[in-house]
Amino acid sequence: MKAARIVQVNQPLQVQELQTPKPKGAQVLIKVQSSGVCHSDIHLWEGGYEGPHGLFLKTTDRGVEYPLTPGHEIAGVVDSLGEQAEGFSKNEKVLVFPWIGEGLCPACRAGDENLCDKPRSLGVYTDGGYAEYVLVPSYKYLVKLGDDTDTDTSAPLSCSALTAYGAVKKSSLRPNDNVVIVGAGGLGLMAFQIAKAITGSKIIAMDIDDAKLKEAKENGAANTINSKKEDAVNAVMELTDNMGADAVIDFVNASKTVETDMQLLRRRGKVVLVGLFGGELKLSLVTMPTRAYRLIGSYTGNITDLIELVSLAKRGVIKPIISNRFKLNQATEALTMLKNGKILGRGIINP
Amino acid sequence: MKAARIVQVNQPLQVQELQTPKPKGAQVLIKVQSSGVCHSDIHLWEGGYEGPHGLFLKTTDRGVEYPLTPGHEIAGVVDSLGEQAEGFSKNEKVLVFPWIGEGLCPACRAGDENLCDKPRSLGVYTDGGYAEYVLVPSYKYLVKLGDDTDTDTSAPLSCSALTAYGAVKKSSLRPNDNVVIVGAGGLGLMAFQIAKAITGSKIIAMDIDDAKLKEAKENGAANTINSKKEDAVNAVMELTDNMGADAVIDFVNASKTVETDMQLLRRRGKVVLVGLFGGELKLSLVTMPTRAYRLIGSYTGNITDLIELVSLAKRGVIKPIISNRFKLNQATEALTMLKNGKILGRGIINP
Amino acid sequence: MKAARIVQVNQPLQVQELQTPKPKGAQVLIKVQSSGVCHSDIHLWEGGYEGPHGLFLKTTDRGVEYPLTPGHEIAGVVDSLGEQAEGFSKNEKVLVFPWIGEGLCPACRAGDENLCDKPRSLGVYTDGGYAEYVLVPSYKYLVKLGDDTDTDTSAPLSCSALTAYGAVKKSSLRPNDNVVIVGAGGLGLMAFQIAKAITGSKIIAMDIDDAKLKEAKENGAANTINSKKEDAVNAVMELTDNMGADAVIDFVNASKTVETDMQLLRRRGKVVLVGLFGGELKLSLVTMPTRAYRLIGSYTGNITDLIELVSLAKRGVIKPIISNRFKLNQATEALTMLKNGKILGRGIINP
Amino acid sequence: MKAARIVQVNQPLQVQELQTPKPKGAQVLIKVQSSGVCHSDIHLWEGGYEGPHGLFLKTTDRGVEYPLTPGHEIAGVVDSLGEQAEGFSKNEKVLVFPWIGEGLCPACRAGDENLCDKPRSLGVYTDGGYAEYVLVPSYKYLVKLGDDTDTDTSAPLSCSALTAYGAVKKSSLRPNDNVVIVGAGGLGLMAFQIAKAITGSKIIAMDIDDAKLKEAKENGAANTINSKKEDAVNAVMELTDNMGADAVIDFVNASKTVETDMQLLRRRGKVVLVGLFGGELKLSLVTMPTRAYRLIGSYTGNITDLIELVSLAKRGVIKPIISNRFKLNQATEALTMLKNGKILGRGIINP
Repeated sequence: MKAARIVQVNQPLQVQELQTPKPKGAQVLIKVQSSGVCHSDIHLWEGGYEGPHGLFLKTTDRGVEYPLTPGHEIAGVVDSLGEQAEGFSKNEKVLVFPWIGEGLCPACRAGDENLCDKPRSLGVYTDGGYAEYVLVPSYKYLVKLGDDTDTDTSAPLSCSALTAYGAVKKSSLRPNDNVVIVGAGGLGLMAFQIAKAITGSKIIAMDIDDAKLKEAKENGAANTINSKKEDAVNAVMELTDNMGADAVIDFVNASKTVETDMQLLRRRGKVVLVGLFGGELKLSLVTMPTRAYRLIGSYTGNITDLIELVSLAKRGVIKPIISNRFKLNQATEALTMLKNGKILGRGIINP
Repeated sequence: MKAARIVQVNQPLQVQELQTPKPKGAQVLIKVQSSGVCHSDIHLWEGGYEGPHGLFLKTTDRGVEYPLTPGHEIAGVVDSLGEQAEGFSKNEKVLVFPWIGEGLCPACRAGDENLCDKPRSLGVYTDGGYAEYVLVPSYKYLVKLGDDTDTDTSAPLSCSALTAYGAVKKSSLRPNDNVVIVGAGGLGLMAFQIAKAITGSKIIAMDIDDAKLKEAKENGAANTINSKKEDAVNAVMELTDNMGADAVIDFVNASKTVETDMQLLRRRGKVVLVGLFGGELKLSLVTMPTRAYRLIGSYTGNITDLIELVSLAKRGVIKPIISNRFKLNQATEALTMLKNGKILGRGIINP
Repeated sequence: MKAARIVQVNQPLQVQELQTPKPKGAQVLIKVQSSGVCHSDIHLWEGGYEGPHGLFLKTTDRGVEYPLTPGHEIAGVVDSLGEQAEGFSKNEKVLVFPWIGEGLCPACRAGDENLCDKPRSLGVYTDGGYAEYVLVPSYKYLVKLGDDTDTDTSAPLSCSALTAYGAVKKSSLRPNDNVVIVGAGGLGLMAFQIAKAITGSKIIAMDIDDAKLKEAKENGAANTINSKKEDAVNAVMELTDNMGADAVIDFVNASKTVETDMQLLRRRGKVVLVGLFGGELKLSLVTMPTRAYRLIGSYTGNITDLIELVSLAKRGVIKPIISNRFKLNQATEALTMLKNGKILGRGIINP
Repeated sequence: MKAARIVQVNQPLQVQELQTPKPKGAQVLIKVQSSGVCHSDIHLWEGGYEGPHGLFLKTTDRGVEYPLTPGHEIAGVVDSLGEQAEGFSKNEKVLVFPWIGEGLCPACRAGDENLCDKPRSLGVYTDGGYAEYVLVPSYKYLVKLGDDTDTDTSAPLSCSALTAYGAVKKSSLRPNDNVVIVGAGGLGLMAFQIAKAITGSKIIAMDIDDAKLKEAKENGAANTINSKKEDAVNAVMELTDNMGADAVIDFVNASKTVETDMQLLRRRGKVVLVGLFGGELKLSLVTMPTRAYRLIGSYTGNITDLIELVSLAKRGVIKPIISNRFKLNQATEALTMLKNGKILGRGIINP
C-alpha cells in the first residue's frame, strides 16, 4: 500500500510503498477514504512545540518515532477483520477513534483513552491515515457512520470537532453565561456551532481577522471582537455589564492571548486552554484563590464524545466545512498550505 | 461595646468603645464568645498581598475600608433579633457564616455567597468578631451549635476548616488517588483530617518542618516529605510508581511551591491553589492541554459546607486544635505571634 | 387593593377588597401586571390531588389555608421597598420567583428554595398574584426583566417554563440520547424548546392529540407518536433501533402513562416524573437494579434556573405562547376553561 | 480441568471434567485460587427471580444458558496469555473484573461495562470461577493484587463489595446526611465500612437480627434499628429530628422494605435499590414530584470502582470478612448453606 510519511522533520513527506497490514485478534484493517489534515500534523512535521522560557519541546521526547505516517482524522470502510473482531462487516463505512491508550491506566479504565498515561494515538505514535490503509488495534475504536454519511465531512469529527467539543464541555456553560471563544479558525467554528447547539450560552467570538469573525457570527456567535482593532478587555466588559466573561475557550493558547484572557474574567471564571501555540504565562498566584479562577487544559475528547458528535453531524446540527481536497502525493503541499493559513475550513487527503 | 480595630495598617490595633448595634429587619446581634485569629487578618493588618511582578495588591483597592474590626471566625450566643429574624432565640449558641454576599449575583443566587461579585464578608468589608458584639445581616447566616458544643473549637470551622474543606472538595479525590498536601500548618492539618474522613485517598504531606510532618501523620497523612531535606519531585515519584500525584492542594501557594507542584503532577492532575502567599508562576501553556492539567483557585466554602463541617466536628470526625487564647486587648499580640509562626494550632480571642 | 380569592374549594373565586400591604425590612411590594393561570391552581381550587389506592391528598393537609389568593406566575413593576430592600428601584420591571422557602433547611441553604422542607410559595401557602399587588418577602426573589421585555410572556417562565427546565436538566440528556417527552401541552411545548436549545438530544413527542403533536414538531421534536393510535412501545422501539429510550419526561404522570414509560426504557434509562395527575404505579422492584433504572421526581426549579430562562427568553431562544387574557373578575372563568382543556397556550390574568 | 456446574436448575451442581481453554488474542487464562459464593448464584441455580404480580422472571429469558459454571468473584494467578495480551506476566496475582460487556454499547464505550445492553458477565452468561481455570476475554479485565494480598479476601471485592460501593456512590452522601442502610448482611457490612470511609455521613443500620445490628455498629453504623421490634418509621424520625432520612440504601429490595423506605424519606430523599429479593411496590405517583423523590436502581460497579476498592482493601480501610471455605465438590453445600442463612460473612470456594 502507499503511505505519505514524515521521514525527516521539516523535509517533504515521502510517498512510500509499504506492506499492507493483516489484522489479527481484535484488529481491523480500514481502507482510508478521507484523512483530515490537522495543525498538530505540522508540529509532528516540525518535530516539536514552543515551550516556556524559549524552550522547544521535541516530539521525540514525548515518544514519537520517525519515519511516521501522520493522519489521525480517518474515515473509510472496513477492509478485513481479525478473528476476534466483531460488530462490523466488510465495506461498512466507519469513522476511526484515533486517541488510543495502552488500556490499563486510570484514564483508559474510565473510558478516557485520549488522556492515557502512555498514549498510542494513531498518526502520532503509530502509523495513521495519510495512507491507503490503516490498521486499527481493535474494533472497539470504530464508530459506524451509515451508508448515507460522507467520509470527507466525517473525518474532521475525530479531532477538529472533538477538540472543540471537549473544550466546550469542560467550560460547563449554562444559558446565562458569557463565553469568549478565542480563535475563529477551524476549531473555533466548530466550537461556535457546538456551544450554540448544547449550551444556550451567550457566545462572544474573538479573532484578529474580520472575515473569520463574520463566519463566527454565521455559526453561532452573538457578538464578535477584533482584538487587533479594539481593546479586547474593554470590549468584553462592555458586552457583559462590566462583570467580565464567565468562561474563555482559547484555541490559540499563546502568551499574549492568555494574558488577555486572565484580564477579562469574571470572579469564578475559567479559561479552557486548547491551542498548542505555546509560550508561557506569568500567572499571579494570589489571584487564583481570591478570584476563584480555574485554568483547564483540554485535550481532544473520548469515544463517547465522538459518537455524540457523529449523532449531531448526521442530524445536521453541526457541519464541518471541507475547503480543500488533496491526493496522497500532495501531503506536503497540504501541510504547507495549512501552515501558511491558506486553508480556511478543513483540508482532506483522499488516498 | 469594646472592639479591637485596625485604625491604620501596620500599627497596633486599638481597643475602641463603640455603640452596640441594634438589629433591624432580618438582622441578629451576636454576643461574641470566641473569635479566631486567621492569617488573612495579617494581610488586612499589613494592607495587602504580594502580587505578580513584585506588585503589592492593596486591600483598599479591593474595597476594604479602615478603621476595621477584623475577625471572621465568630462563635457566640444570640443577643437580640430584628423583627423579621426567625428560627433562633436569645442565648442560643451559634456559629456565624462570615462569607456574606450582596445577594443578587449568580454566586449568591446559587448559595455560594463566599464567591460573590461584591462581597460583604464580616471582618473584612464590615466589622467582625474582634469585639464584644457583632451584627449579622440576617438570621440566615447563623448555624446552630447546640448547648454541648464549645465555641472556641467551633469558631475556626468557619474559615480555617472551611477553606480546607472547600479545597479538598475541589480536588475531587477518589480512593485510589494520590494527593500531595503542601503546608502542614493549621489549614493543612484540617485538610488531612477531612481528606481522610471523606475521600479514602492516599495522602502525602509536604512541609519543611519535621514537627509539623509528624502531626500530619497523626492527622491522616499516609506519607510525609520534608521538601527542605529531600528532592520533593523524586520523593513523590517514588511514592507513586513514577506516575506522579493525581492532585496537589497547596496551602502556601508561593512561586516556589507551585513550581514544584507542576513538576510532580500526573497527566490529568490538578493543583488546587489555596494559600495567599503570592508571587507569580511561569506557566508553560502548551503543557496545559497536552497533559490535561487543571489549576483551581479555591476560596473558603459556602454555608452548606459549613453546616457539614459542624456535623463532622460534633461527631468528633474532625477536631480543630486550639493552642492559644487571648483577650481583646491582646489582639495585636495575637497577630504578631501568628505572623512569627508562634501559634501552632489556632489562636482564639475571647472578648 | 382587589384580589381574586379561593374562599371555599370548588366554589367560584371571590374578588375581595383587601388592605394593600406595606413592605417592611427586605420586603418589596409588586404591582402585578401579569399573573399566569396554572394547572396547579386547579388543584388548589379543588382542594387536592388524586393519590394512590384511590386516596385524595388534601391541600389543607399539606399546609394550605383558605381563603387564599392563588397565582404564582407573577410579573409586574416594583411599587415600594422596605428599608432593607436594595438593588431595585420603583417602577422597575421584574419577574417574581415564587418558590420561596423558610430559609434554614438544607435545600434553602443550597439555593434550592423550591425544595424547602417547609415551603412558603407565593400563591400556594401565602397570597399570590391574582391581585393588584403582591408582597414579596425579600428583594432576593426578584429577577430584573428590563424595559423591553413583555410581562405577559415573562410570567409563565416562573412556573410553566421553570418546571419544564428543571425536568429537562434532571434528565441529563446528551446529544446521542433519545428522550420521549410525554404530554405536548403547555409544559411539554416549553420542554421541546428547551431540550432543543440546550441538549442536542433526539426528541420524541408523545401525546393523544394530533394537533398538539404537530405543534411539538414545530417546537423541537424530531419524531411524534400518537399513543392513542399507535402502540407506544413498538413505536419507540422502531425509532430507537429496538434499544428503547434513554430517558422519558412525563408531564402527565398518571398510572397509565408511567406504566408505558417503564416499558419503553433502555437499560440505564430514567423516567422524570413531573405531572400531578396522580394515581399509582405497580413497580417491579427487581427490575430497578438489574436494568439500572432511575425514577426521578422533578418539582419546579430554583432561582438560578429562572434567571437562565429569562436569559433564553430575552434572546428569543425560547418563546412561551400566551393564548388567553383575563381580568381579575374572570379568574373563575380562566380556571374553568383551563380545566376543560380550552386554553391551548397559557392564560394570563391582567389585574 | 474440573468445574462445578449447574446442569439443571434446582439440581445439585455437577463437578465435570472440561477441556482447559487456551487463550487467544487478548485473552488471558487465570488459575482460580478463590471464587466467592454469592446470593445471585442462588438465583442462577433456581432459574430466576420473583417479579411483580407474582410473576417469575426466568434467567433463560435474560440470556442465561445451562449448563453453566457459576462464580463471578474470582481471584487467582495468571496462567497463560494470548499473543495480544500484555501488561501481565505468568503467576502474577490478579483479581478478575467479571461484569464484562460486548464493548460497543454506550455504557461500554463510557467504561461502564457492568451496565452493558448485552452483558457477557463471567459466571452468568459465560463460564465462571467455580472451576480450576477461567478464561478472561481480555487482559483489560484484570486488576493487579500484588504478592502480599490474599486472594480469599480479595475475591468478594468484585461483587459483594463492588455492589455496596456502587450503591453508596449513587446515594451521593454528604457529611450532614442521614442514610438508612437496610439489610446488615454481607453487602450491608461492606456498605457500612465504605460509607464510613468515604462519605462522613450519619449511618443508621436497619435489620431484623440483633446480632447483625451489633456487627453493623462495629463496622461504621452510628445507630441501629431492629425493624421487627420497633416501628421503623418512628425510629428514623426520632433519630432525624422528625425530618426523615436523606437517603436509604436497600440491600433487600422487597415490597415490604421498600414500602417502609418510602415512608421514612425526607423531602428530596432518594432510595437506592440494590437487592434482588423482588416483588412489587405500589408507588404514589404524585408524591414523586411534590416531594422531589428519587428511586435509583444500582447494579454492581465498573472496573474503576473495583480498582478503588482494591486500593482501600490493601490499605486496610475496608475488610471483607471470609467465614467459610469450600472445595469445588462442596459447591452445592455452599449454595445451600448460603440460601439457608448459614454463612455470616462470605463463603469462598478454593478449587
